[in-house]
Amino acid sequence: MPELRRDPVVGRWVIISTERGRRPSDFGRPQASREPGFCPFCPGHEEKTPPEVFAVREKDSRPNGPGWMVRVVSNKFPALEIEGELNRRGEGIYDKMNGVGAHEVVIESPDHDRELSDHTVEQISLVLTAYRARMIDLARDKRFRYIQVFKNHGEAAGASLEHSHTQIVATPIVPRRILEELKGCQQHFAMKERCIFCDIIDQELSIGKRVVVENKDYLAIQPFAARFPFETWILPKAHQGAFEQAFQGNFYSLARILKETLMRINLTLSGPPYNFVVHTSPCNENNGPSPYHWHLEIMPKLTRVAGFEWGTGFYINPTPPEDAAAYLRDTQVPAESLSMPRVGM
Amino acid sequence: MPELRRDPVVGRWVIISTERGRRPSDFGRPQASREPGFCPFCPGHEEKTPPEVFAVREKDSRPNGPGWMVRVVSNKFPALEIEGELNRRGEGIYDKMNGVGAHEVVIESPDHDRELSDHTVEQISLVLTAYRARMIDLARDKRFRYIQVFKNHGEAAGASLEHSHTQIVATPIVPRRILEELKGCQQHFAMKERCIFCDIIDQELSIGKRVVVENKDYLAIQPFAARFPFETWILPKAHQGAFEQAFQGNFYSLARILKETLMRINLTLSGPPYNFVVHTSPCNENNGPSPYHWHLEIMPKLTRVAGFEWGTGFYINPTPPEDAAAYLRDTQVPAESLSMPRVGM
Repeated sequence: MPELRRDPVVGRWVIISTERGRRPSDFGRPQASREPGFCPFCPGHEEKTPPEVFAVREKDSRPNGPGWMVRVVSNKFPALEIEGELNRRGEGIYDKMNGVGAHEVVIESPDHDRELSDHTVEQISLVLTAYRARMIDLARDKRFRYIQVFKNHGEAAGASLEHSHTQIVATPIVPRRILEELKGCQQHFAMKERCIFCDIIDQELSIGKRVVVENKDYLAIQPFAARFPFETWILPKAHQGAFEQAFQGNFYSLARILKETLMRINLTLSGPPYNFVVHTSPCNENNGPSPYHWHLEIMPKLTRVAGFEWGTGFYINPTPPEDAAAYLRDTQVPAESLSMPRVGM
Repeated sequence: MPELRRDPVVGRWVIISTERGRRPSDFGRPQASREPGFCPFCPGHEEKTPPEVFAVREKDSRPNGPGWMVRVVSNKFPALEIEGELNRRGEGIYDKMNGVGAHEVVIESPDHDRELSDHTVEQISLVLTAYRARMIDLARDKRFRYIQVFKNHGEAAGASLEHSHTQIVATPIVPRRILEELKGCQQHFAMKERCIFCDIIDQELSIGKRVVVENKDYLAIQPFAARFPFETWILPKAHQGAFEQAFQGNFYSLARILKETLMRINLTLSGPPYNFVVHTSPCNENNGPSPYHWHLEIMPKLTRVAGFEWGTGFYINPTPPEDAAAYLRDTQVPAESLSMPRVGM
């Protein structure tokens, strides 16, 4: 069972893998034993993954067989384990608990060679629908406080399998980063009785210079204090605390702006590795009005995070967000790629 | 002039380079125009760097000529600029100020091919003396609130020049990471009237399982909640708020434990890239008793930080600190490398 440990000075939790602990000789080598050329996420290899927990399937196709359009399975090498109690305990001045949680993989399509932005808007909608379904289901487990959806694209961004996928981790504590954002939202609301993200959206729309693309429901911007070059946030224009609330599960508009934003990043930067993360409300705050405003943060990996950043938490961004937004806006995107969807199965 | 911008939600400051802004085509290529095979840090090339601000030199040698043992110069491509006022100002809901600060480079020895741990203990003491001298001098500038000393070793850790060096950045605000640690120290002191780092040191010494090496004055441990495999902290055993207070400038004991710790890391992990950072008290808190306890954090780069970590601030460490400490302790270090110093000039 992995262990969750708390740093006694700053309160940061870490996950320590106690069972599959890596030895010095394990680093710098490809992880786990994989047959070269074999992809466990491709259709026909369904038995190579743990059983599916969600899938969008053709009629009459069977669970854990081919015929799926999107498939969600448990991670074969989970960072947290689904079975067990938290068992919070001390060790002298230190605090720890069992590494209980869920770790799932969203296989975004049966197609091994297409990345997320290569798909039709309709297919991307199905992927978002899978995120939502798993978030709602996992949040029912009272042990979990937060559901983190994130994507590592490209080896430099931490992806260990080529076939395009997203990961979902349910954690038994609300992560620091979310607590910090929540606190910022609450402080702003206490002062102004307004949502700070709504205020950001208003200002960005009125200035325009950091806007990458917008549609009726969503906005993609370079944030004012971007940590990374070409860091891009996608936000719903209306105030919504949780991702699950997004237009009652109709993700067409979000899929469209996500596809266009990723295409612009790929075309402008020659298909860089990137991470994206969904930031949403903690599990127990999904009901009623939320001080939070969910959004998606895309971070292309163009620079290295080095000693200065690790030491200070301060980032050096070599590309002003205004310039990055202009580069992304000015890139030509083939119009037909964003036209009416055809499910390309 | 670079700009410091504050994230309005979480209060994180970033440095935006407005003048040498990098374009999409600049990423993925080696930075700046450098003559291949030419090293601006080697003796005889002193005119290729900005003038030195500190040096340990042979008698009768002249500033900015050969004959130095350690040399500190301004960074030719500084992240922050030394001239100017802060000029704090707003932009709607956003806050920014001029990117005023200092950015210096400590050239650790004249020898191009030796990394820090290859040097004699005496030579490493000179490097530490240079850190201290610059910290004291920079802290006199009332615009600066924090002096960050950090080292990037190896390309994967962000080093862009081979010749072993350390960087020093003076910032006009206290970085987040330091504020968080200070807050943790203050809270612990308010509850217990003791320093939390002193409590950590007591517990680690009595348990022993996370101790890598110790001497009379210092201790090297794997922290209980290590973010990274083989993350190693070196702490003074006595309570000391600021690095500059370290034994009235006699760094022999620190140089010795730093050399041995880096040697153990290099031998155990085949010379990995690493970052280290000195965490010390902010500039205006160096006088009188400090709630802080300075220390040095070494982070070998063995794993990639990916979407989960960026999204949550939560880290997954695949090597339990107890195992890492045992690997590092069990590695044989040639005794003569730590014996009485000879200045190897």
